Amino acid sequence: MRNSHKHFIEELGEVGLIERITRRFKASNEAVTVGAGEDDCAVIDLRSAKTGYHYLVVTTDTVQSSTHFPSGISPFQMGWSAVAVNLSDIAAMGAHPFAFVIAMGIPEHTDTDFLDALMAGIEACASAYNVVVVGGDVTKSKELILTGTCFGFVSKPVKRSTAKVGDLLGVTGRLGNAAVGLKIIEEGMNFSDDLKVAAKRALFQPIARVKEGIILADSGMVTSMIDISDGLALSLAELGRRSHVGFELYKEKVPVSSNEVPLELAIYYGGDYELLFTLDAGISEADLKRLQDEVDMSIIGRAMPQEAGIYFREGTSREAIAIKGYQHF
Amino acid sequence: MRNSHKHFIEELGEVGLIERITRRFKASNEAVTVGAGEDDCAVIDLRSAKTGYHYLVVTTDTVQSSTHFPSGISPFQMGWSAVAVNLSDIAAMGAHPFAFVIAMGIPEHTDTDFLDALMAGIEACASAYNVVVVGGDVTKSKELILTGTCFGFVSKPVKRSTAKVGDLLGVTGRLGNAAVGLKIIEEGMNFSDDLKVAAKRALFQPIARVKEGIILADSGMVTSMIDISDGLALSLAELGRRSHVGFELYKEKVPVSSNEVPLELAIYYGGDYELLFTLDAGISEADLKRLQDEVDMSIIGRAMPQEAGIYFREGTSREAIAIKGYQHF
Repeated sequence: MRNSHKHFIEELGEVGLIERITRRFKASNEAVTVGAGEDDCAVIDLRSAKTGYHYLVVTTDTVQSSTHFPSGISPFQMGWSAVAVNLSDIAAMGAHPFAFVIAMGIPEHTDTDFLDALMAGIEACASAYNVVVVGGDVTKSKELILTGTCFGFVSKPVKRSTAKVGDLLGVTGRLGNAAVGLKIIEEGMNFSDDLKVAAKRALFQPIARVKEGIILADSGMVTSMIDISDGLALSLAELGRRSHVGFELYKEKVPVSSNEVPLELAIYYGGDYELLFTLDAGISEADLKRLQDEVDMSIIGRAMPQEAGIYFREGTSREAIAIKGYQHF
Repeated sequence: MRNSHKHFIEELGEVGLIERITRRFKASNEAVTVGAGEDDCAVIDLRSAKTGYHYLVVTTDTVQSSTHFPSGISPFQMGWSAVAVNLSDIAAMGAHPFAFVIAMGIPEHTDTDFLDALMAGIEACASAYNVVVVGGDVTKSKELILTGTCFGFVSKPVKRSTAKVGDLLGVTGRLGNAAVGLKIIEEGMNFSDDLKVAAKRALFQPIARVKEGIILADSGMVTSMIDISDGLALSLAELGRRSHVGFELYKEKVPVSSNEVPLELAIYYGGDYELLFTLDAGISEADLKRLQDEVDMSIIGRAMPQEAGIYFREGTSREAIAIKGYQHF
């Protein structure tokens, strides 16, 4: 019975499909001169978009069925995730996200309810961060594949390559929740109800630390930044490699949402869209305190000379950190 | 024997794969502060990128194995096409393309020679148009799927919605070659050797009319523009719908590369990356002549009141043009 009410996207035809999509993404920002579906390109008036910012930042990121979406994720959450993963990269530059384009590869026999929920998720995440969806593309593909490209503006981009020996190492939020979510789904691991809820939310509908990235960058005390979606260990290695530094890390300082979260999951698993950053060694106690009042963050270590490597420090003992985490290939 | 020398991308690991790709795309433009693979985002210095242009234009377009690539296309040409289809959209705004990001979904068991050729094609097309590849993403997917996003700058974007009744209708280049190429491949149709070569080139390695778009826009005489990758008939319909005009078309003026090309293929099939545009009715003979000296173009019709519809005109007789062409769904 229920199926008799279902409609599939191939019934819409390409024109109908594009109209259905672009209706959803009507631009409401005066700097967007030409928005989604209106012309060959979106057109953004640079004079009114972000006056005073000198740099344009751009990132592109794909999520798709066969490798990215955990079982149980809703189409709304798939759409949300496609935006959030891109916003996290913008956040890691300390930049203000502005606009987003989305290329969707959709299997032919997809029902229109699914498509509508997917678009609602894209729209909800973009709106939550004041980002305008200005364009896109739809093609028929073998699996659902969503490629978002996000761009934003910034005056002083925070890079990966500018950490200095002695800098404090910080991270936003709590780590390991997304990995816990995956363990619950894939291995049936059991946790408290509170953690279950937080874990599934982290996995299915990640939050990008856009506001935090901007506050950190604007503080003038941040010397480098990266997002840790590939896991803390891999991101530390990348930050170290780019900046030519090593890191010492204090296990007990790594922030987890409860002591149920195995440290292994907080360090070697990806999916947490938090920001890892360094703070100038000369930051005053008062400035650090002020920053900690504004941003949920933890100081978890310190940048060391590159030859020291990347290791856990406990008293005088050192334990090397394995450089492993989430890799697509 | 030959297989013993093949290497597959899964042997590289994600880090090795990304390094192999980003080595290829070292930015050589001073406005690109952070280029491909270096950080969470690419960073473009707006002050030195395109001083004096007020608008940023953005477009995204996907090409993929199951629906876009004709049989016989090489990996180099696949890469080339992924860039060219995006450049064509930039061209249709009369804009200067500047930077490009590419998200690649690649099947696991792809050999590294294939990947290298794909990247060479991307690089060759971008370079041919002075476009910098500033970023990208690689994921494992069931089929080869390439989503490009291109950015450019323009002072006076030429839209689809601004054609006026009485305007001349023009088109660049020759139509139908890509369709002829497809007919050769899919139906074994036979044509002269010259046309075969031109047709396959149009299909496999399309040229984007970037220079032509800029010259047309800068002439100040162009009132609207669109690319005709979905076919002339569909593009006419879209231009008419957006501008609230109709069009009359003169069959004998539709430019084809030889009289072997069936007019049907020049009008109702997609794949020609030419520009369709309108010229102000008040353009002088001398200005039109000058424009025609600079741009390979043909005047093929005229904008009419919307209620007149879209039709062929021969003497006093009219024949409605079917609104059909290439649709993905």
